[in-house]
Amino acid sequence: MNKPYSRLDRDNAAVLLVDHQAGLLSLVRDFNPDQFKNNVLALADLAAYFKLPTILTTSFEDGPNGPLVPELKEKFPKAPFIPRPGQINAWDNEDFVKAVKATGRKQLILAGVVTEVCVAFPALSAIAEGFEVFVVTDASGTFNEITRDASWSRMTQAGAQLMTWFGVACELHRDWRRDVEGLAALFSNHIPDYRNLITSYSLMKGTNPLPKAVP
Amino acid sequence: MNKPYSRLDRDNAAVLLVDHQAGLLSLVRDFNPDQFKNNVLALADLAAYFKLPTILTTSFEDGPNGPLVPELKEKFPKAPFIPRPGQINAWDNEDFVKAVKATGRKQLILAGVVTEVCVAFPALSAIAEGFEVFVVTDASGTFNEITRDASWSRMTQAGAQLMTWFGVACELHRDWRRDVEGLAALFSNHIPDYRNLITSYSLMKGTNPLPKAVP
Amino acid sequence: MNKPYSRLDRDNAAVLLVDHQAGLLSLVRDFNPDQFKNNVLALADLAAYFKLPTILTTSFEDGPNGPLVPELKEKFPKAPFIPRPGQINAWDNEDFVKAVKATGRKQLILAGVVTEVCVAFPALSAIAEGFEVFVVTDASGTFNEITRDASWSRMTQAGAQLMTWFGVACELHRDWRRDVEGLAALFSNHIPDYRNLITSYSLMKGTNPLPKAVP
Amino acid sequence: MNKPYSRLDRDNAAVLLVDHQAGLLSLVRDFNPDQFKNNVLALADLAAYFKLPTILTTSFEDGPNGPLVPELKEKFPKAPFIPRPGQINAWDNEDFVKAVKATGRKQLILAGVVTEVCVAFPALSAIAEGFEVFVVTDASGTFNEITRDASWSRMTQAGAQLMTWFGVACELHRDWRRDVEGLAALFSNHIPDYRNLITSYSLMKGTNPLPKAVP
Amino acid sequence: MNKPYSRLDRDNAAVLLVDHQAGLLSLVRDFNPDQFKNNVLALADLAAYFKLPTILTTSFEDGPNGPLVPELKEKFPKAPFIPRPGQINAWDNEDFVKAVKATGRKQLILAGVVTEVCVAFPALSAIAEGFEVFVVTDASGTFNEITRDASWSRMTQAGAQLMTWFGVACELHRDWRRDVEGLAALFSNHIPDYRNLITSYSLMKGTNPLPKAVP
Amino acid sequence: MNKPYSRLDRDNAAVLLVDHQAGLLSLVRDFNPDQFKNNVLALADLAAYFKLPTILTTSFEDGPNGPLVPELKEKFPKAPFIPRPGQINAWDNEDFVKAVKATGRKQLILAGVVTEVCVAFPALSAIAEGFEVFVVTDASGTFNEITRDASWSRMTQAGAQLMTWFGVACELHRDWRRDVEGLAALFSNHIPDYRNLITSYSLMKGTNPLPKAVP
Amino acid sequence: MNKPYSRLDRDNAAVLLVDHQAGLLSLVRDFNPDQFKNNVLALADLAAYFKLPTILTTSFEDGPNGPLVPELKEKFPKAPFIPRPGQINAWDNEDFVKAVKATGRKQLILAGVVTEVCVAFPALSAIAEGFEVFVVTDASGTFNEITRDASWSRMTQAGAQLMTWFGVACELHRDWRRDVEGLAALFSNHIPDYRNLITSYSLMKGTNPLPKAVP
Amino acid sequence: MNKPYSRLDRDNAAVLLVDHQAGLLSLVRDFNPDQFKNNVLALADLAAYFKLPTILTTSFEDGPNGPLVPELKEKFPKAPFIPRPGQINAWDNEDFVKAVKATGRKQLILAGVVTEVCVAFPALSAIAEGFEVFVVTDASGTFNEITRDASWSRMTQAGAQLMTWFGVACELHRDWRRDVEGLAALFSNHIPDYRNLITSYSLMKGTNPLPKAVP
Repeated sequence: MNKPYSRLDRDNAAVLLVDHQAGLLSLVRDFNPDQFKNNVLALADLAAYFKLPTILTTSFEDGPNGPLVPELKEKFPKAPFIPRPGQINAWDNEDFVKAVKATGRKQLILAGVVTEVCVAFPALSAIAEGFEVFVVTDASGTFNEITRDASWSRMTQAGAQLMTWFGVACELHRDWRRDVEGLAALFSNHIPDYRNLITSYSLMKGTNPLPKAVP
Repeated sequence: MNKPYSRLDRDNAAVLLVDHQAGLLSLVRDFNPDQFKNNVLALADLAAYFKLPTILTTSFEDGPNGPLVPELKEKFPKAPFIPRPGQINAWDNEDFVKAVKATGRKQLILAGVVTEVCVAFPALSAIAEGFEVFVVTDASGTFNEITRDASWSRMTQAGAQLMTWFGVACELHRDWRRDVEGLAALFSNHIPDYRNLITSYSLMKGTNPLPKAVP
Repeated sequence: MNKPYSRLDRDNAAVLLVDHQAGLLSLVRDFNPDQFKNNVLALADLAAYFKLPTILTTSFEDGPNGPLVPELKEKFPKAPFIPRPGQINAWDNEDFVKAVKATGRKQLILAGVVTEVCVAFPALSAIAEGFEVFVVTDASGTFNEITRDASWSRMTQAGAQLMTWFGVACELHRDWRRDVEGLAALFSNHIPDYRNLITSYSLMKGTNPLPKAVP
Repeated sequence: MNKPYSRLDRDNAAVLLVDHQAGLLSLVRDFNPDQFKNNVLALADLAAYFKLPTILTTSFEDGPNGPLVPELKEKFPKAPFIPRPGQINAWDNEDFVKAVKATGRKQLILAGVVTEVCVAFPALSAIAEGFEVFVVTDASGTFNEITRDASWSRMTQAGAQLMTWFGVACELHRDWRRDVEGLAALFSNHIPDYRNLITSYSLMKGTNPLPKAVP
Repeated sequence: MNKPYSRLDRDNAAVLLVDHQAGLLSLVRDFNPDQFKNNVLALADLAAYFKLPTILTTSFEDGPNGPLVPELKEKFPKAPFIPRPGQINAWDNEDFVKAVKATGRKQLILAGVVTEVCVAFPALSAIAEGFEVFVVTDASGTFNEITRDASWSRMTQAGAQLMTWFGVACELHRDWRRDVEGLAALFSNHIPDYRNLITSYSLMKGTNPLPKAVP
Repeated sequence: MNKPYSRLDRDNAAVLLVDHQAGLLSLVRDFNPDQFKNNVLALADLAAYFKLPTILTTSFEDGPNGPLVPELKEKFPKAPFIPRPGQINAWDNEDFVKAVKATGRKQLILAGVVTEVCVAFPALSAIAEGFEVFVVTDASGTFNEITRDASWSRMTQAGAQLMTWFGVACELHRDWRRDVEGLAALFSNHIPDYRNLITSYSLMKGTNPLPKAVP
Repeated sequence: MNKPYSRLDRDNAAVLLVDHQAGLLSLVRDFNPDQFKNNVLALADLAAYFKLPTILTTSFEDGPNGPLVPELKEKFPKAPFIPRPGQINAWDNEDFVKAVKATGRKQLILAGVVTEVCVAFPALSAIAEGFEVFVVTDASGTFNEITRDASWSRMTQAGAQLMTWFGVACELHRDWRRDVEGLAALFSNHIPDYRNLITSYSLMKGTNPLPKAVP
Repeated sequence: MNKPYSRLDRDNAAVLLVDHQAGLLSLVRDFNPDQFKNNVLALADLAAYFKLPTILTTSFEDGPNGPLVPELKEKFPKAPFIPRPGQINAWDNEDFVKAVKATGRKQLILAGVVTEVCVAFPALSAIAEGFEVFVVTDASGTFNEITRDASWSRMTQAGAQLMTWFGVACELHRDWRRDVEGLAALFSNHIPDYRNLITSYSLMKGTNPLPKAVP
């Protein structure tokens, strides 16, 4: 009866960022804006850090929905970028699905705006085609908590796993010894409390508290 | 173990509005009143926009429960309207079930007041008879959050899917290209943040920001 | 995969009130005290109104846990009352289980203080013995929301259904025509908003707004 | 030591609407969007209903701040409309102050976006010039509750009075007998609970529950 | 600069209950309904217990606002009851002011629905005429917390003192020895936690935990 | 117009602990119980640490209100302890006032249960007699936030200053150099986050992280 | 379909405390710090009281994560303590798994910081190897409620049971008669409301209210 | 009676940043950490942008309080930096007061950690010496909301004005035309919603949405 443990694997995971557009972001009210911005950029940074295949898509960029936020575009200059001509569910867009399948990965790390549509629809579609879906809940936003809770219910009924960017990073990294400095930089840049721990620690050790940028 | 993805289909869905009565609405305290009024009218507008068969029912209209809110009656002048003589579960009323079955639809989009009774009871009954039930959580209201959470638990145990009016609209529409203006009007009339995006966009494009009314 | 709809049936249901003791009630902080007192008394009133077999039990009445609240004792002068000598899970007490089985009922409507112990333990035990368990969430209280949420999770995993006193009353009554006045009195005494609807309605009809007492 | 009671007077009051612009509204997060939209339109409707001199102003309409929301412009086609070329405090704009003084009114009913700037700055300036300022708190929005609370503190230190649109309407109207239908229409259009009361009442009286539009 | 301590005095205080009407109560959303009902009845009980002159008034009883809640009418069968023909501010009604002045009391204990209108307006008017005003904040309700906070600010600027029914009772009673049983009954009937303390205590002492009714 | 800065002075301050009784504590619901217990004990520890004259008083210890919590009695074995025979306002008890005056201190640091009665009444009385009153808000508890806010308003109108135990400790200590270890022990025992800082710091320095007990 | 009732058994349960380190604790923001500290120490006390095999582990103690909180180390001087050299999932550390298996227990009571990583990862791994996992939700902390909710979802999908320290203690103890004094001491030390009940009760009985220390 | 309007003036204002240290920041729990970090850096950026004299001070940098956060030190390499040897109130440190007076400014913009001590104490001291104090509430943090509210009350009683970094920036800038690009960069870097407005606007205008760095 239990769902067996499927661990995220850096060789089998891809990241899908759906409709993080400047206009649509004004709809997101289940997060404080500073917090949400940080979460989205943290997810982008971890995708880059772990060198995961990443796919960007948008809906109607030249209308009121607005353009993809520039930081994401800059972060992934070579990633497949699929501006959808009209499909609301990204999975209804052939190019998007092709790009996903081209990665050869079966674990999809998914985030977007708004949660019950731009995340839930492709999540349900991908599961139906045999993919494992890991929703990055804190990099996905929507109108309010009721909507979020309802969408979480629908996605988990279908078998999606709810995660956060921090959990994703930790499950991918597995062992600090792979790269202490790199993971610490990721955390320091996106978790103020962790940054403060590093700052205090570094002072006592006489080392530099400002972490390197994530490449 | 996962629930397979059942997508809402405009040719297979019907809308059931249960007991949105002027008296009963004073019991609804899990939503801000402005928000709840907007959600109910948005659901009505989308039912009309997608031309979904819609069924109205009430409980004891001439008693303290009060009449159906007039906007719903006006919106659906030709819809089956079943004032129940006493049955608390609408599904216990033969006329109501007949009306549902007469639509020939198997996907029931359901909302009502109060959630744990007027929504949950017919939801459970309909599922027991083989229908798929999609609860419009934000057009269904009740006494408080505890009651809502408990009723969500009971309905999802039985297999109901929790949605919101916005998710329903997007899943039914599927592709903006079917009718950009119509969907934008629906959103503009019921999502202030989206309306503002359209207003700003229209100003720059020199077009009219005020969307057409939903027919 | 779905849980089939099991409706509460007035000929097959019994009510179990576990440890609503004056001392233990000071531990309940997931409800406003006025609200919780009202919910517990409403559940007692509905048990009496529907003439459901009702069983009372307490833990260590003569110690700090304090006595059963007097209103419950007075409400059910002839009900089995099992002060447990030490068992924390009421189902570990033979007399309690005997009393439950003596009712011949298979649907157990259960409430108590505190939720994760006095409700969850007998709920899990009763389900294990083939009973259906309906938890009256709003007449069951505990330390805080986290504890409540965790206990709800454990009970629903095991198959318990989460309800509220209002939902229980409506599912048992089924049709207003059985007894309009009696159900209205129950609601008027325990739902201030409903009482106000009746008051306004009665004024216009020239009838008496103060409902009869529940017998 | 007490502030003497200064009652709003329909012959001495003017309404100032500051920077309710489509872009700036996306910054408002101390209100639910449906609620805030309703409050702003309610204030506009009451200004029209009481025929109060009303002044509109905006900041940088053709930049990211966006245009004045169209409903306000349509509501007050003949009102002074001062698009400020750069002044953040509307009171720093001579045309705005002239327009205010031209009304001859000494009681200023003030609302705007965002509260701590577009409301607080002109409020403080107007008080300094001897006006009485009544802040319509629920038609003024800002980033979060902390900001709102801080701005309320600063404005009340200076002598501003904090009100809401409903309180303003009631203090201006003073006696229902002046125009029962008109005030009821205002409330029915902007207070869902009040609308429901009217709907139920009208049903029993056999009158029309849908209020006339506010002129 | 400090406001000197003015203590409530049972020989100098009167209670004003403004517009606790069945319809208007559906507007109150800054309290849980069970809690608010209890607070209003507690204030009524204390007014009776301390034999304070009490004045009742309503606005448009035969319209949507609905009748005074019956419990209040029954509690004070001989109290002046002034159904106002249209004045929104009760102090604008001559009969009401006459009734207040006829008590000869200078300390007015005031509660009503809704706070920013039915409480704040007469509070400001009474202070302007030299009365001391003590607002019973928890027996006064309104649309939401923002409205409540704004109205509290306006009333305290004018010199009103914010209290609760419990504080009023304690300040009037001054010394338990005047009547232990009577005050305990008042608290036991309206504070569940206090009732539980008395119940546990009584069990150990072998006395009756159920307090006498308030006369 | 501004209130001049009156700093707490260890040679001019006394601590008054009013009615922290085992029964009354069950009424306190504006704090998490763990948090409130910690705050009260922190205040007791700081009173002892700074050797401030401390006065204890209770109301009806042998009734339902219950005894003074044993930790306070043990902490101040020689402090004046005034069990009041009936006066609700401790300042109405001559022995209490005498004890206060016997300290020769003019700055009263005051905390108690419940805030709007046991704290507010003596606060207002003491100010009226020329004392300065500093309310330790986080060691004073009551029924809910509304009651707390109202009582804060009444006390600040009268000139009381609102503080917390941490602010009191810092203002009394003035300079860490007086006794680093002692103050650190106080903070470490009552502020988990501060304790953790000390623990991490100590590990790196090789010193003992467990602070000495407060004498 | 239901999960069968697996009761915690003191002869089959072990306690795993993962990464309660002084630095990491500053990340925990889904609990009030006083409450969280109390919960963790309560879990430690119950592990000791029930003499459950207990295993401690940490991640990078000599870096910013900081040392294990000293109270835990002192409480379990002989327990296996596994400072992990780098593995994020404790179950990836062979020594840790060996220590768990060496207990011979199949029921794992698990708590840690942060929930979605240090608790969820070993929970999922242990379940995959056939252990039963009971998560002590209130002794496990993380960044915020969203993260907590997401991690609870993932763990329960896999079959973990969510509990609290109080529920664990009660399920292990089963019958007060085993040791009334010992369990009462545990509750008195960690539940202020329960301590107050005991204090009041003891006063009346003339016994000592201060419970013995937990060994 | 009203406080006259004192506008912030870029030629008369200085910024005081008190104890924003890596250790102390772990105590701040009245803000989300992402939000608080952003607010502090926004205040630093505006101080630099408006070229206001800025003074930094810390308490016990080499102990558990930890070092000043590195970003602040880097931002103001030439600013007076006063590590206090022990004084808790920065105003008790002669060097700090000298540095403040050396600026020649009379308007002090003040922020720090924790609010009721590191902000309130120097605020009260500075006011006592004739300075005007403007507290940047959202760049000042403390343990919880109760502490914050109490400290706000004490500071406003003394005449401090409560502001936020955004209000400070707007009041100092006064007119967008002084430097549109500079102010927009400040807002874009620290207000995600504003950044999104600029991004969408820029796309349509064909300009660069990424604002220049603040010097």
